[in-house]
Amino acid sequence: MAGNTLFSRLVEAAGPVWHSYTRHEFVRRLADGSLPEAAFRHYLIQDYLFLLHFSRAWGLAIYKSDTLAEMHRAQNLVAATLDVEIGLHIDYCRGWGIDTGVMESAPEALETIAYTRFVLDRGLAGDRLDLEVALAPCVVGYAEIAAERMADPATKRDDNPYRDWLDMYAGAEYQSLARDAAVALDELFERRGGEGRVPALAALFTTATRLEADFWQMGLQAAR
Amino acid sequence: MAGNTLFSRLVEAAGPVWHSYTRHEFVRRLADGSLPEAAFRHYLIQDYLFLLHFSRAWGLAIYKSDTLAEMHRAQNLVAATLDVEIGLHIDYCRGWGIDTGVMESAPEALETIAYTRFVLDRGLAGDRLDLEVALAPCVVGYAEIAAERMADPATKRDDNPYRDWLDMYAGAEYQSLARDAAVALDELFERRGGEGRVPALAALFTTATRLEADFWQMGLQAAR
Amino acid sequence: MAGNTLFSRLVEAAGPVWHSYTRHEFVRRLADGSLPEAAFRHYLIQDYLFLLHFSRAWGLAIYKSDTLAEMHRAQNLVAATLDVEIGLHIDYCRGWGIDTGVMESAPEALETIAYTRFVLDRGLAGDRLDLEVALAPCVVGYAEIAAERMADPATKRDDNPYRDWLDMYAGAEYQSLARDAAVALDELFERRGGEGRVPALAALFTTATRLEADFWQMGLQAAR
Amino acid sequence: MAGNTLFSRLVEAAGPVWHSYTRHEFVRRLADGSLPEAAFRHYLIQDYLFLLHFSRAWGLAIYKSDTLAEMHRAQNLVAATLDVEIGLHIDYCRGWGIDTGVMESAPEALETIAYTRFVLDRGLAGDRLDLEVALAPCVVGYAEIAAERMADPATKRDDNPYRDWLDMYAGAEYQSLARDAAVALDELFERRGGEGRVPALAALFTTATRLEADFWQMGLQAAR
Repeated sequence: MAGNTLFSRLVEAAGPVWHSYTRHEFVRRLADGSLPEAAFRHYLIQDYLFLLHFSRAWGLAIYKSDTLAEMHRAQNLVAATLDVEIGLHIDYCRGWGIDTGVMESAPEALETIAYTRFVLDRGLAGDRLDLEVALAPCVVGYAEIAAERMADPATKRDDNPYRDWLDMYAGAEYQSLARDAAVALDELFERRGGEGRVPALAALFTTATRLEADFWQMGLQAAR
Repeated sequence: MAGNTLFSRLVEAAGPVWHSYTRHEFVRRLADGSLPEAAFRHYLIQDYLFLLHFSRAWGLAIYKSDTLAEMHRAQNLVAATLDVEIGLHIDYCRGWGIDTGVMESAPEALETIAYTRFVLDRGLAGDRLDLEVALAPCVVGYAEIAAERMADPATKRDDNPYRDWLDMYAGAEYQSLARDAAVALDELFERRGGEGRVPALAALFTTATRLEADFWQMGLQAAR
Repeated sequence: MAGNTLFSRLVEAAGPVWHSYTRHEFVRRLADGSLPEAAFRHYLIQDYLFLLHFSRAWGLAIYKSDTLAEMHRAQNLVAATLDVEIGLHIDYCRGWGIDTGVMESAPEALETIAYTRFVLDRGLAGDRLDLEVALAPCVVGYAEIAAERMADPATKRDDNPYRDWLDMYAGAEYQSLARDAAVALDELFERRGGEGRVPALAALFTTATRLEADFWQMGLQAAR
Repeated sequence: MAGNTLFSRLVEAAGPVWHSYTRHEFVRRLADGSLPEAAFRHYLIQDYLFLLHFSRAWGLAIYKSDTLAEMHRAQNLVAATLDVEIGLHIDYCRGWGIDTGVMESAPEALETIAYTRFVLDRGLAGDRLDLEVALAPCVVGYAEIAAERMADPATKRDDNPYRDWLDMYAGAEYQSLARDAAVALDELFERRGGEGRVPALAALFTTATRLEADFWQMGLQAAR
């Protein structure tokens, strides 16, 4: 990301919190293949529950749209989640021996509730810019995480059970979706922003990032 | 509709307000071909603006979903509106010499604001059942209106400039969408309802129906 | 208002729509005493219904608060409406022979629905700045209307049945509340605004002003 | 609570989760005076942050009101929180050497975010009944917790640094507020409920209760 996009300013304002998320032990061990399977399994189940609320957030963005173009973008993200990502997730989990019934009946972890409801509350109490800033650590962050790990020599490319996960988020399709999301932040900021909003947006982004780091931590803890 | 669906109970509770909407002069003259073109044109433009808020309402329903199935249904209705209906509307309006720029820059009429924002407020202040009940006079009502007019010998089938409109809403696809919406009301009522809610739901439905009648009236008035 | 407050910029952007509201025939005839009583009575009843939704809007502002100070301000406006204004309104209406039962059971006029739900939708789809901008034609506008009429030689001060109304809104207490509301807009704009938001805020303010003018018009029409 | 109130049905449906909250180690040690001060201090700071969102929830309830009576009740609960409880909390914390600045600048714990935003999301996605059910483990539960502990011979009444806390919630004023809240649940259920809603309301109540238990646990953990 170029140095003066809104996203890059938010990352800078988050300081060490950003890397505590994007370079979290969970991610590094996923990349080098040493992540306990129980940790990954727990993450997968909670991520399924996360995606349901993520879809709700983009549904909310449709409601919060001022133009047809904004509506179409939010609609595409609902579809990308409900029609593609949840489907892939279900297939992927099946490969790990987790069937849909298990995911649907799993209780939501504290960390899943905290991040998803925090996002939805920011989206409802604030405006669409608040909503998309709260979602950005997830949408844009996952692309950065996967790309960074794929560029890291410590990453185990062969015989790594988590390789598919890295490929999905490092792949051209997801990288492009994340770039579009960062561009959309700048467009929203132009129409709805102003320097006066930056401190509050930065605080919001930092909290959302911290909650994403807690989500990785939850995965690790499940394996202890 | 069978006599004991929620929809039929709401129609019954609305009393004469229901037919003041479904058999409004606008609709009867549309069917017999005597509706002034200016009235129809004004209606078409406002209906375009209406559809944008209608899409927002189904986006809100995605947010308000408790299950994947509920999300998919709301998502399908967003798509039916944004991908199909608005597109058809734009094409159709072009046939009437109204281009998209005209529709996008037209000020929203009082009647358009009143009905659309009433629906959205009910959806936000209440729950998904309130939201869908507020939308029902539109979603289910249009199917009843078109079917009733097509069955009426007074309807002019040939050389009626409004015939396409009747065909669209009397057609199998829309009739099926409307039936599904009525069924969804019953399912929602089972999960979220109870007899105690009926008076408030009936009042809500009657107000929404009255606002739909005002919408027709707005069309007629434009031609005066 | 000084020339460079957000409120004054919004008024300027509204152009002739602003005076079509603040100098509406309803207001001028209220001031010169020639307003038909039926018009005023209809207005009073609808204004009661309006105040209920106005309280809901300030309740929403409590939800949308980021700080204790913001919460207290919204709470004070809920109290000013629910504890003071609605009470005064009920007393005042009694003086006009309208009892609470009549007001509570009166159907909401199209114009009442349109303005109140428009405000609530802007407040929910947007942020607190959108909400307060949508409320400003009412909160700040009423103070300007009453002050302007009281300064007008054409205003009938004696034997004017509507004198109390003018006194209430021209009085020090309401004028101060309105000034605070205008100051709050500037504070909100500093924290949540930016030049990029001005066109959308101006469009929002203009529509809200138009809906307020329609509200006066509704009163006049009731007397015809 | 009588055996067939909605509240008692929800408690029953929550099964062991209810006592895992109301008889949590934190509460029992608070009552016998053995709770580490660090645990209580952490709890107090997070409870301050909690109360801000609790006020927002009752502000939302004003927005979600259908009648003046409903609005007044929600307004009273906003006032009870903002004007009384937060004030008492600030005084009380000062007695523990925690000043307002510390509370305001403390980062929200994961557990605080999870419970408060869960409540707000249920309130927005659902209706006022969902909102009040999500708040009930807190509003009604605290009264039960304090009353039960005060009736327990193991509770240390003298020289217990936490005695004031127990007195506040066991006191007549709070007990009455909690009883009113339970009664309000039954009234809401009559107007907006039905047996079909019970399973979803029970699941919601159980999750909210679990999140309250996590809140106590957070306090304990802070002392480790």
